[in-house]
Amino acid sequence: MKIGKETVPRSAICTSDEHSITVRGMDLCSELIGRISFTDYFHLLVTGRRATPAATAVLDATLVAIAEHGLVPSVQASRMTLAAAPDALQGAVAAGILGCGSVILGASETAGRLFDEIDQRAAGARGAALDEVALAVVAEYRAAGRQIPGYGHPLHKARDPRVDALFRVAQAAGADLRFVHIAEAVERVLPQAVGKALKLNVSAAIPAVLLGIGFPLQALKGVPILARTAGLIAHLNEELERSIGFALSYQATRELQYDGPARATD
Amino acid sequence: MKIGKETVPRSAICTSDEHSITVRGMDLCSELIGRISFTDYFHLLVTGRRATPAATAVLDATLVAIAEHGLVPSVQASRMTLAAAPDALQGAVAAGILGCGSVILGASETAGRLFDEIDQRAAGARGAALDEVALAVVAEYRAAGRQIPGYGHPLHKARDPRVDALFRVAQAAGADLRFVHIAEAVERVLPQAVGKALKLNVSAAIPAVLLGIGFPLQALKGVPILARTAGLIAHLNEELERSIGFALSYQATRELQYDGPARATD
Amino acid sequence: MKIGKETVPRSAICTSDEHSITVRGMDLCSELIGRISFTDYFHLLVTGRRATPAATAVLDATLVAIAEHGLVPSVQASRMTLAAAPDALQGAVAAGILGCGSVILGASETAGRLFDEIDQRAAGARGAALDEVALAVVAEYRAAGRQIPGYGHPLHKARDPRVDALFRVAQAAGADLRFVHIAEAVERVLPQAVGKALKLNVSAAIPAVLLGIGFPLQALKGVPILARTAGLIAHLNEELERSIGFALSYQATRELQYDGPARATD
Amino acid sequence: MKIGKETVPRSAICTSDEHSITVRGMDLCSELIGRISFTDYFHLLVTGRRATPAATAVLDATLVAIAEHGLVPSVQASRMTLAAAPDALQGAVAAGILGCGSVILGASETAGRLFDEIDQRAAGARGAALDEVALAVVAEYRAAGRQIPGYGHPLHKARDPRVDALFRVAQAAGADLRFVHIAEAVERVLPQAVGKALKLNVSAAIPAVLLGIGFPLQALKGVPILARTAGLIAHLNEELERSIGFALSYQATRELQYDGPARATD
Repeated sequence: MKIGKETVPRSAICTSDEHSITVRGMDLCSELIGRISFTDYFHLLVTGRRATPAATAVLDATLVAIAEHGLVPSVQASRMTLAAAPDALQGAVAAGILGCGSVILGASETAGRLFDEIDQRAAGARGAALDEVALAVVAEYRAAGRQIPGYGHPLHKARDPRVDALFRVAQAAGADLRFVHIAEAVERVLPQAVGKALKLNVSAAIPAVLLGIGFPLQALKGVPILARTAGLIAHLNEELERSIGFALSYQATRELQYDGPARATD
Repeated sequence: MKIGKETVPRSAICTSDEHSITVRGMDLCSELIGRISFTDYFHLLVTGRRATPAATAVLDATLVAIAEHGLVPSVQASRMTLAAAPDALQGAVAAGILGCGSVILGASETAGRLFDEIDQRAAGARGAALDEVALAVVAEYRAAGRQIPGYGHPLHKARDPRVDALFRVAQAAGADLRFVHIAEAVERVLPQAVGKALKLNVSAAIPAVLLGIGFPLQALKGVPILARTAGLIAHLNEELERSIGFALSYQATRELQYDGPARATD
Repeated sequence: MKIGKETVPRSAICTSDEHSITVRGMDLCSELIGRISFTDYFHLLVTGRRATPAATAVLDATLVAIAEHGLVPSVQASRMTLAAAPDALQGAVAAGILGCGSVILGASETAGRLFDEIDQRAAGARGAALDEVALAVVAEYRAAGRQIPGYGHPLHKARDPRVDALFRVAQAAGADLRFVHIAEAVERVLPQAVGKALKLNVSAAIPAVLLGIGFPLQALKGVPILARTAGLIAHLNEELERSIGFALSYQATRELQYDGPARATD
Repeated sequence: MKIGKETVPRSAICTSDEHSITVRGMDLCSELIGRISFTDYFHLLVTGRRATPAATAVLDATLVAIAEHGLVPSVQASRMTLAAAPDALQGAVAAGILGCGSVILGASETAGRLFDEIDQRAAGARGAALDEVALAVVAEYRAAGRQIPGYGHPLHKARDPRVDALFRVAQAAGADLRFVHIAEAVERVLPQAVGKALKLNVSAAIPAVLLGIGFPLQALKGVPILARTAGLIAHLNEELERSIGFALSYQATRELQYDGPARATD
């Protein structure tokens, strides 16, 4: 069935023949394997460009920051899945990744879109002028009933400790800090705009530093997904050694209350 | 419902409080973010140990080697899924990962188990003595109707070019080459054992070098899964820019033949 | 970690003890198994109510209408996944379901929301008055840059033949046809509103008949997902008998064009 | 890339043109929609044959029996996934299906293979002769270190109440009870063979009745997958109304013990 107009597939990422594999114009076997880190290769694959030293530092830092935070819901889902289907590691990883949605890790992308909109309207403004633009955009979000993504955290009530760590890396690496300033402007105006002093969390800090190294807006969500895959594999390796998937599901329902109808026959 | 004996979940990977996150005994924000590469962090997460320089070199090389090979079936499945469900990037990544099964990327694990069995029986033997053990184990696999995983490739009929690249990295890094020798012993005995001169492919080279840096056998499959996730994100980023998912599915069925029954009413 | 305010899980669907399982207030073993069809059980599970005869007829018809349409993209993705990972049938089904997104099968839900909005504003209006409301709502969608879901089909350029079949079933069963009239009103005003005479497709007909039997708006997407699962299992059973997953991926890329950079070393 | 020998895809399930859709030789719109139940359509899709009345009764009963059993691990995984990614219902369904593995619902298939092997060797034997064959096959499983699938249940210590319900339906429908007798023979010999009086559970009863209506062995796992999809959709509909996904994950970790290394800096 022909869906849409395009019928000839095209791709600029990779081509290969019997003797070689070319990725983004480079020979995989002689120019990349052994000569480039996985982080830089991820950058090359996504953007088509070699990472600058600042980009490497920032991308590594974001991947490390978001890979692991203990037994969060997606890790629980993944470990329960492996306990039930231990032969299919790929299925358990997939189940964990499926929890990288709009509420949890997906805020990296939506926060990035918020900062990008402020950046376009701010046109280089700083300080009070930037705060004004931030306030206007946040107010529009609120008026449209939209959440402000990337602020507040269920555990880290003060600023999420990963935020300062990421901002320090970006500054030390000499990355463009424009979006960091925007993220902080939003943080400053939130008490006025939403009535609560919600602090930056890691999902806002990630786009704030990644947009500063030119990482594409629409690929932002790929960073927490790739990072979390590493954490999931560590958890699944532990699950294979000493399974807790069923213990988690047992605990989860110990206080479960059934509030549906009783049997008529009782 | 209580399934199994264990009811209290335990984990040794990560713990956190309001102000800090501890991973494998290290403070995420002050000791890891900005101080460790994503590859080394993956090693730490999975094994609980800091990577040696040799481990870093080998793990990076395997991740780079297997991340991308063009529009292979799992990439096609992933791009078709995003074309149909463009709002759920995580779903398209998951669909791609689900294709990392026993036939395609999963051979990394099964080849690793083959090499581990030979290693245990070989007890340090080299040369002709090692070949003898390899031949015996391969013959047992064949007698039990099992495939020999990691040899032969639909495109790379001579040795997969990624194999030598990985072996060079392992040697240059000073990694233990024991499993490389085992992999090559299997390659030597295959003509005698199965009647075909099948050459090492990347899925055998990956466990051959990873087992030499002490990467856990049961986590081997995690390496192609993590690597392929990076390639999938690059493809999905391209798919969002210029979609080919439906063009691929159109081409796939151009020569489709329906060989079921005709309608009785025709 | 505590996310959100609720900490005690509650559910009204099912409870069980060592000797019995109660679903929606009925004893599974004595009142449901052998006494209720799977379609009616699905209705009971989702809504908590027994299906009326009209509801049974309509729900069966929608499930039959959308279960299968040949080698559509999600079926291709599913069969490629099974070819690569033949041991994990559940993974291949999951890959296929992940393609039930906003562009393909998900239109059942978004079209339902469109009809619901028109219904609320129309307040029982019929004929020209209904068309007026439909036109107003469609115009608002267009002004907001939103697609009109459920109209037009890449293959069935005239009205999708499944549409009339579903409407006939709803009428014969004596179901409420209010939303059918709304769906047809939208079809009538589309030439004026969007400049093209796009005809109703199956994804608009499904909510049109299901809303008429009181099926919940937010569960609409579950109908094509459940239906398609049946089709996927049939295809995966065929795939296990005679695999075409790799033939599909081979065909898909026969005309693939690589338009990335050439190797500098060439 | 050409993987395998086959390059031209073939399918016997469905074909279509602009005006009609043909499934298994029948016109979807005039012969199936409104004229066949979803259960019978599933049977037609998978087997290519119309269901007999006995097949309808048995297939409906198995789908009803296994669709729902409360907040089992896969339902928890699915609800946690939806809580984190509420926009992607298909992703939450997929996460739940991924838990239909070898340990949980997949036993339907492996138990079916056990019964099929006994059937082939028993060659029509009944009573004590059948028990002897069952004992021999079970002993071989044990000698090979394989589990006996489909016996014992964490909650239903006596015979799972769904077992008798399914056997009653099969008998009342006049289905072939050969595999029911085999399943009971295995139950009788288990105390001798494994030293424990494990009783039949639903995952053994399902293949016992389905093989008696000629349902294909390799498609058995599709029955719990399809059934569970219906249950998942009901749970996800409830989750959208009143979310418990995060409450479940909170409860699951209340007693979590971290037993990794302490921070050196503490």
